[in-house]
Amino acid sequence: MNYKYFMPTRVVMGNDCIVNNSNLFQSLGKKALIVTGTRSAKSNGSESDVKKALEAEGIEYVVFDKVMSNPTISCVYEGARIAKENNIDFIIPIGGGSPMDAGKAIALLAAQTIDEENLFSGIYEDKVLPIAIVPTTAGTGSEVTQYAILTNDKAETKTSIATDLIFPKVAFLDPKYMTQLGVETTINTAIDALSHAVEGMLSVKASTISDALAVESIRMIMEVTPIMLEALESNNQSKFDLKTREILLHASLIAGMVIAQTGTTAVHAMGYSLTYFKDIDHGRANGLLLGDYLRLVEEQKPELGKRILNAMNMTGSKDFKDLMNKMFGKKEVITLEEISKFSGLAIQTRNIGNCIVKPTEEDIVQMFKDSFY
Amino acid sequence: MNYKYFMPTRVVMGNDCIVNNSNLFQSLGKKALIVTGTRSAKSNGSESDVKKALEAEGIEYVVFDKVMSNPTISCVYEGARIAKENNIDFIIPIGGGSPMDAGKAIALLAAQTIDEENLFSGIYEDKVLPIAIVPTTAGTGSEVTQYAILTNDKAETKTSIATDLIFPKVAFLDPKYMTQLGVETTINTAIDALSHAVEGMLSVKASTISDALAVESIRMIMEVTPIMLEALESNNQSKFDLKTREILLHASLIAGMVIAQTGTTAVHAMGYSLTYFKDIDHGRANGLLLGDYLRLVEEQKPELGKRILNAMNMTGSKDFKDLMNKMFGKKEVITLEEISKFSGLAIQTRNIGNCIVKPTEEDIVQMFKDSFY
Repeated sequence: MNYKYFMPTRVVMGNDCIVNNSNLFQSLGKKALIVTGTRSAKSNGSESDVKKALEAEGIEYVVFDKVMSNPTISCVYEGARIAKENNIDFIIPIGGGSPMDAGKAIALLAAQTIDEENLFSGIYEDKVLPIAIVPTTAGTGSEVTQYAILTNDKAETKTSIATDLIFPKVAFLDPKYMTQLGVETTINTAIDALSHAVEGMLSVKASTISDALAVESIRMIMEVTPIMLEALESNNQSKFDLKTREILLHASLIAGMVIAQTGTTAVHAMGYSLTYFKDIDHGRANGLLLGDYLRLVEEQKPELGKRILNAMNMTGSKDFKDLMNKMFGKKEVITLEEISKFSGLAIQTRNIGNCIVKPTEEDIVQMFKDSFY
Repeated sequence: MNYKYFMPTRVVMGNDCIVNNSNLFQSLGKKALIVTGTRSAKSNGSESDVKKALEAEGIEYVVFDKVMSNPTISCVYEGARIAKENNIDFIIPIGGGSPMDAGKAIALLAAQTIDEENLFSGIYEDKVLPIAIVPTTAGTGSEVTQYAILTNDKAETKTSIATDLIFPKVAFLDPKYMTQLGVETTINTAIDALSHAVEGMLSVKASTISDALAVESIRMIMEVTPIMLEALESNNQSKFDLKTREILLHASLIAGMVIAQTGTTAVHAMGYSLTYFKDIDHGRANGLLLGDYLRLVEEQKPELGKRILNAMNMTGSKDFKDLMNKMFGKKEVITLEEISKFSGLAIQTRNIGNCIVKPTEEDIVQMFKDSFY
C-alpha cells in the first residue's frame, strides 16, 4: 500500500477565535491583503473582526473586496496586481468558496509570475504569500485544502489550481459568521460538504484516515437534515441555531480535510457544467447528482455503497435521492443536447480518473437524465 | 466550543517510500545529521535506504548513532553539539521512540541555545532544524507529534519537550523495517499505540476529529491481537506478516495524530514511573495500567467507557484487562512503598490535568495495586 497524508493548516475554531488568537497573524508579516466579496464579510462581522485583530497586532492592511461568485481568472490577476503594488506580505481571504478560492490563487500569483496559460499546470516555483483564511459559509472546506477553483472560460468549466503551496497557514472558524446565511445557501453549502465527504470515500485515493473522517462528516450533516427540511418548509433560517451552525461548520471542515487527501470524483466533474452553463449553485449541482452516482456505486460496488449509506443512516440510494429532491424542489430545465455536451466535458476531467467506480460517458448521460428527467 | 487542530507533517507511507521519494529531502538542506541507535537502523535496512536516498540527491550526511533506550538529556545536548560543529541543515531521526525523540530534541537544540533548566519550559525561539523522520517500530507515533520525551533525572521521570517547532516536516513509513522486530517489542509498541488512541478519547482535548481517528486506530490494533497472542505462544515473530506490520504501523501513525491533538492522560502519567524506576518498557507499562484506568472510566463516565470498549469490540474493562494479562504474562514486583511514591509523582503531572476522568491520588494508588497485586 502506498499512501500519503498532508494537511498542514493550523485550524482554530470557536466563538471570537480571530480576536482571541490575533497573535497568529504576527508570524505572517507586516501588511495584509484582505480578499473578499462586496457584502457578506461586512454584514456578518468577519471583516471587522479581522481588522480588529490586525490593528491589535499593529499589522497594516489593504482590502480587495471585488470577488464575485465563481471568480474569474482576471479577478485573481487583478488581486495579485494589487498585492504586488502594495507590497503585501500575506493574504486573508474571507468568505464562502469564491473569496477563499480567489484569495488562495492571489497568494500564489502575487509571489511569482505565472502566465495565464500555465495557471492550472501545477508547475510553480516554490513561492507563495502565506494565507490566513476565514470561511463564512460551511461548505467548501477550502480553508483546509490545496485547491483554488476558478471559472475557466477557455475550458468552459471550473478548473482547479492544485498545489500544496496554497494550503492556508491558519484557518479561523467562527460559527457566528454563518448566522445570517439564508436557508437556501445553508442547505446548498451543507450538501456541498456532504458531497465532499461521500466523494472522498469514492476516490481511488481514499484511505483509512480519510474514510474515518468522511464517515464522521457524513453522520454530522445527515443529523442536521431534519432541521434543513424544517427551515425550508417554514422558510426560516433561525431554525439553524448556533449549535447547528457549529456542527455544519465542523462537518464541512472535516470534509475539506477528506478532499485534501482524496480529491473529488464524478459528481463534481458533472456539477461543474451545471454551474458554468446553467448558473446552478455549486452545492445544489452536487446535491442534484449525488443520488444518481450513489445508485451507480450501489450497482457496481455494493459493499462500498452500503458503507456510505450506513454512515448516512439510509437503506438505499433511492431514499437519499428522495431526500435531495425534497430539499432542492423544482429542478432546472436541461435539454438533451446540453446533457450530451456536459457529459462530453465531464468525461475528460481529472475527477473521473479519480473514481473507484468509473462511469462511462453513457453512464454520465444516464445520470444527468435520471436526475433531470 | 473552542477547538484547535494542527498536524503539519507530510506523511509518506509504503514499500521503499524513502528511496522513491528522495526528492523530499531536497528542500530541507544540503547536509543532514542521521540520529539513531547503535544497531537496529543498520540491520533493518532503514539507515542504508536513507543514505542511498541522500546520495541520490547529492546531500551530505553525518551519523550520530549513540542514542540509548530512554534517551538522556546529555545525549541530546551531545547530538546538538555535533550538529552545530558540522553545520548541519536538517535532522533525520531513524528508529523507535528513543532515536525519534532524541532527534527531535536535537533539531531544536541545534538551532538555538537552551539551558538545561529551560529545556522543558515550552518557551523557545522560533527556530529549529527541519526534521525528516523514519520510524522503525509501530508504536510511539512520534513521527507525527510535537513531543520529544526524555529521561529527566532531576524530576525522576520522563518529561516532554512539547512544541509545534518539532513536528517533523516529513515522515517516511515503510513497514519492511519492522519485519525483524521481536514478538515482545512488537506487542509492547502496539499496545503503546493502543494506549495513545484510548487516552486520546479520555482527554479533555478530545474532539470529533481525534475521536474518529482514535476509534479507527483502536479497531485496527484490536484486530491484530489474536495474531499477537499466537506469536507470543509460538514465540514466532514471523506470525506478523508484512500486511499485519503495515496495519500496526498505520494504526500507530493514526494514534500519533490523535495524541498530537489531545496529549496523553493518567496511564502515561503512571507508566513513566514504571519505566524510570523499574525499567519496564514504556508500552508494557501502559498496557499494564490501561485496563485499570478503563475500569475507573467505566464507573465514572459509563457512556465514554462504552464507546471505547465498543471500538475494542469488548463488553467490559475486565475482558480487556484479561487480554492484557495474557499478553504481558508475569508482572514485575512493585512494593507498596514504590506505589505510594509513584502515585505521588503521577498526580503532579500535566497528564492528569488532561483527563476527562481525573483520578485522585488514592485512585492512582488503587490502580497500581489492582494491576500489580
